[in-house]
Amino acid sequence: MLVDELPTPALTVDLDALDANIARMAERWPGTTLRPHVKAFKSTALAKRLADAGHVAFCAATLKEIAGLGAAGLGEDLLLANEVADGSRLRAVVEGAPDARITIAVDSPETIAVAASAGVREVLIDVDVGMPRCGCSMAEAGRLAQVARSLGLNVRGVMGYEGHLMAEPVDRAEKVEAAMAILLAAHDDVGGDVVSGGGTGSWDTNRWVTELQAGSYTLMDTHYAAAGVGFAPALALRTTVLSRNLAGGWVAVDGGLKALGMDHGNPSIDNANVWYCADEHTVFSPRADAPLPAVGDRVTVWPAHVDPTVAYHDTLWVVQAGEVIDRWPVDLRGW
Amino acid sequence: MLVDELPTPALTVDLDALDANIARMAERWPGTTLRPHVKAFKSTALAKRLADAGHVAFCAATLKEIAGLGAAGLGEDLLLANEVADGSRLRAVVEGAPDARITIAVDSPETIAVAASAGVREVLIDVDVGMPRCGCSMAEAGRLAQVARSLGLNVRGVMGYEGHLMAEPVDRAEKVEAAMAILLAAHDDVGGDVVSGGGTGSWDTNRWVTELQAGSYTLMDTHYAAAGVGFAPALALRTTVLSRNLAGGWVAVDGGLKALGMDHGNPSIDNANVWYCADEHTVFSPRADAPLPAVGDRVTVWPAHVDPTVAYHDTLWVVQAGEVIDRWPVDLRGW
Repeated sequence: MLVDELPTPALTVDLDALDANIARMAERWPGTTLRPHVKAFKSTALAKRLADAGHVAFCAATLKEIAGLGAAGLGEDLLLANEVADGSRLRAVVEGAPDARITIAVDSPETIAVAASAGVREVLIDVDVGMPRCGCSMAEAGRLAQVARSLGLNVRGVMGYEGHLMAEPVDRAEKVEAAMAILLAAHDDVGGDVVSGGGTGSWDTNRWVTELQAGSYTLMDTHYAAAGVGFAPALALRTTVLSRNLAGGWVAVDGGLKALGMDHGNPSIDNANVWYCADEHTVFSPRADAPLPAVGDRVTVWPAHVDPTVAYHDTLWVVQAGEVIDRWPVDLRGW
Repeated sequence: MLVDELPTPALTVDLDALDANIARMAERWPGTTLRPHVKAFKSTALAKRLADAGHVAFCAATLKEIAGLGAAGLGEDLLLANEVADGSRLRAVVEGAPDARITIAVDSPETIAVAASAGVREVLIDVDVGMPRCGCSMAEAGRLAQVARSLGLNVRGVMGYEGHLMAEPVDRAEKVEAAMAILLAAHDDVGGDVVSGGGTGSWDTNRWVTELQAGSYTLMDTHYAAAGVGFAPALALRTTVLSRNLAGGWVAVDGGLKALGMDHGNPSIDNANVWYCADEHTVFSPRADAPLPAVGDRVTVWPAHVDPTVAYHDTLWVVQAGEVIDRWPVDLRGW
């Protein structure tokens, strides 16, 4: 099937761009120095492609992602880079994947107790490095590691996500260094082999982690592109023109708020100004001399934020040179 | 099961609030004067509750919604309030629901030709009443009706959606009247029994349509609540505290960008300031004297926009007086 024969809206992955992104990242972060974050793409098929490239240790944000990776035979070294408060679900996931190595992030006595009682064996101490979300303070890290060890947990090290700096326009490298100084100070108190952190936005500036938690680089979006992180756009929403208004000079295509994560603003269309997204439409006007597309024409929409865009879809259509060559289920979405 | 025992994040529907909303709307728009828009809730189970209340004619935004309503035995009078450019999919849906009455919106010679060739029998002429999206100009409507009739289609009337006025803060009633004047003028040229339009935001001001296309009123969101439309919040995202930062005074719960439509901005939490949403977290601080919740505590998050929030979920958990009494699949999501 040709790409332009896909029923729309359809989310596509350009295989050549994906492979180029994987190769570029693997030069700087080979093997398990990269811990690909599956939250970006939520597909075990894409994860297998990363494992084939040598990245066999994965990172996840939900228990469903951990369970799915384990069930797909990708459980060599799984990190849930998130806290868990629900011991019974955690236990079910751990017991459901007896062959998987599962490490989870903890940042409080409560989450340590949940991990220990659920049968988890290994943890990282999650440290707040400047983005208000999860993570203990630098000063608490050593004490929490003691608590975890007292409950029989293997503390592999620390993690800290400088997510607030991923698209930082000014002095990104210096700010990443300052955030990682917090993490390294915590690591001094915690011990262990692992210093886990970073992401697509700090892949070229973070020299302090032992493993980089990056996922978005595989698919990319306009937000990361604007931040100049240097990977190729591989993810696109394919749409069809449903209506055009010659007098007003605008066009409406058949993908909108339910096909695109909107927290980073509107998506982009080449040579066009995007006006807004409605539930099932994106409305835009062509720039300058670009013609107004006709009803039935195909239009490629570039998502602004990969993660919440993928989470709206059940399928990633794999395309190469204008043809659809495979179909990857978004099998890790939901919770 | 108690609501607080649901695995989180979980999207819940308060049955008493839903029923009160249905009853309030039915007083003003009884029976088929209301054409409930299923795009808001994407659940045939909820649609059946509306049918039981006398609203047996439904409105939809996608072919999947039309097909699903037909398959659920709710096909008495279905309106696809959207244009279709894909004739083969349209034909498959029409042929797959031989017992359903399916009317679709058309706004161009191209979409009329698609409808006629796909076996559709009835259409509405979709008129632009001021929101740039789909819809022909008032001046074109009569000519398009002629084109449709020349191809053997039954033109039931017109539709026009004043979506840009749904939350209009200033002179909403007057602006709705002006938009509907366009629709009524087009109707004069088109003929037919149906003048379809409106929505939750104009339920109390639109006196000109023969049927109101409202869906969000069933579940509601903070955007419509701020617009003062007068229905009760029935949709909530139930979350659990994963992390709290005593020094910083913030808390992170386990629902974020992949559980909440973000085009209307952040969700709300009672007595709290929501800072931001990350992929799987919402971060907030309690207001004034409200205590900082503990890890494991439940927090109710109020979505800002119902439609793209529901589209992230596969289940609506039906709750009443603190208990989970049913589970409605979001069976109409996707395309």
